[in-house]
Amino acid sequence: MVDNAFNFSGGPSGQWKVIKMETLIGEPLQDVSHINVSPASVSVSQEEIWTLKGVVSNLRYTEKQEKDSLQAIQENLGRSHAICAALIPMRKSEAWWGLAQDERRAIFEKQSQHTQTGLKYLPAIARKLYHCRDIGGPFDFLTWFEFAPSHANAFEELVTRLRSTEEWSYVDREIDIRMIRA
Amino acid sequence: MVDNAFNFSGGPSGQWKVIKMETLIGEPLQDVSHINVSPASVSVSQEEIWTLKGVVSNLRYTEKQEKDSLQAIQENLGRSHAICAALIPMRKSEAWWGLAQDERRAIFEKQSQHTQTGLKYLPAIARKLYHCRDIGGPFDFLTWFEFAPSHANAFEELVTRLRSTEEWSYVDREIDIRMIRA
Repeated sequence: MVDNAFNFSGGPSGQWKVIKMETLIGEPLQDVSHINVSPASVSVSQEEIWTLKGVVSNLRYTEKQEKDSLQAIQENLGRSHAICAALIPMRKSEAWWGLAQDERRAIFEKQSQHTQTGLKYLPAIARKLYHCRDIGGPFDFLTWFEFAPSHANAFEELVTRLRSTEEWSYVDREIDIRMIRA
Repeated sequence: MVDNAFNFSGGPSGQWKVIKMETLIGEPLQDVSHINVSPASVSVSQEEIWTLKGVVSNLRYTEKQEKDSLQAIQENLGRSHAICAALIPMRKSEAWWGLAQDERRAIFEKQSQHTQTGLKYLPAIARKLYHCRDIGGPFDFLTWFEFAPSHANAFEELVTRLRSTEEWSYVDREIDIRMIRA
């Protein structure tokens, strides 16, 4: 078991209370009232209804200059005022994964400005990306966001902008789960 | 279990007879006389001494033009005359994985000409890359090669060239296992 693997479990109780679960595209996930996040080395409670596993990995598209800009202003998860969270499990199509690296990068940043858009919402919106395509889960990515209630509108704007991009035309499954700290 | 996951097992019998196992850097793997390759969905025989799991994944550095050049001339595994094989499990350092995408790409191709060098040995040397960094194994990659005995010298030249590159200064564990079809 790798140290950088985490379980995101949905069940009847837990750290985060679900306030909305919305399926944007593809098969839904069963509704749950709470989400728990824990290292994958810790066994998941039998109460849980579903568990998604994700791994923190190396950067896939981010270039040095972008990495430096992000690191200069982004904040970590776990800020006490950031009581709102979102978990967005997502899968991209085989057409996306069949593209070469430069083709995916061009869609990701040149056409869709994924990093530049995300940067505009820092440090208000903290974000962490977990990979799951290579570990055989039903999604390719799990993204976790945390923000204060005063930035809820900004978060809405961020996801709306990203979903309108060329990159998102390759998304074939996406669930948006909103929570508040329990 | 994902369909694109494979087990590479070392044990007392199997499809490929080991003729040499060499540790180039880092901790060795226990010596074995045979290697078996099987889909990860099939359970591994209890006889096996070690098993390494790898996943076929998307391209990480290869650009469109390179992908087209590779696809135009590369051959598949399993050619009847290709009775020689090599399995090279490898790990790269944290310094490598901490680099941004453009920094890794520059070392991989601009400085080390990884793809251009590999292209020179096609179609003689068939090659398949399996990823294991994100699935928690002891290596980051497993590369499998197949070639005819008449191309054994060419294969030696290929690995010698690659090992002399800037990219290889980031390799901190590498085992070279040579086999013939049993």
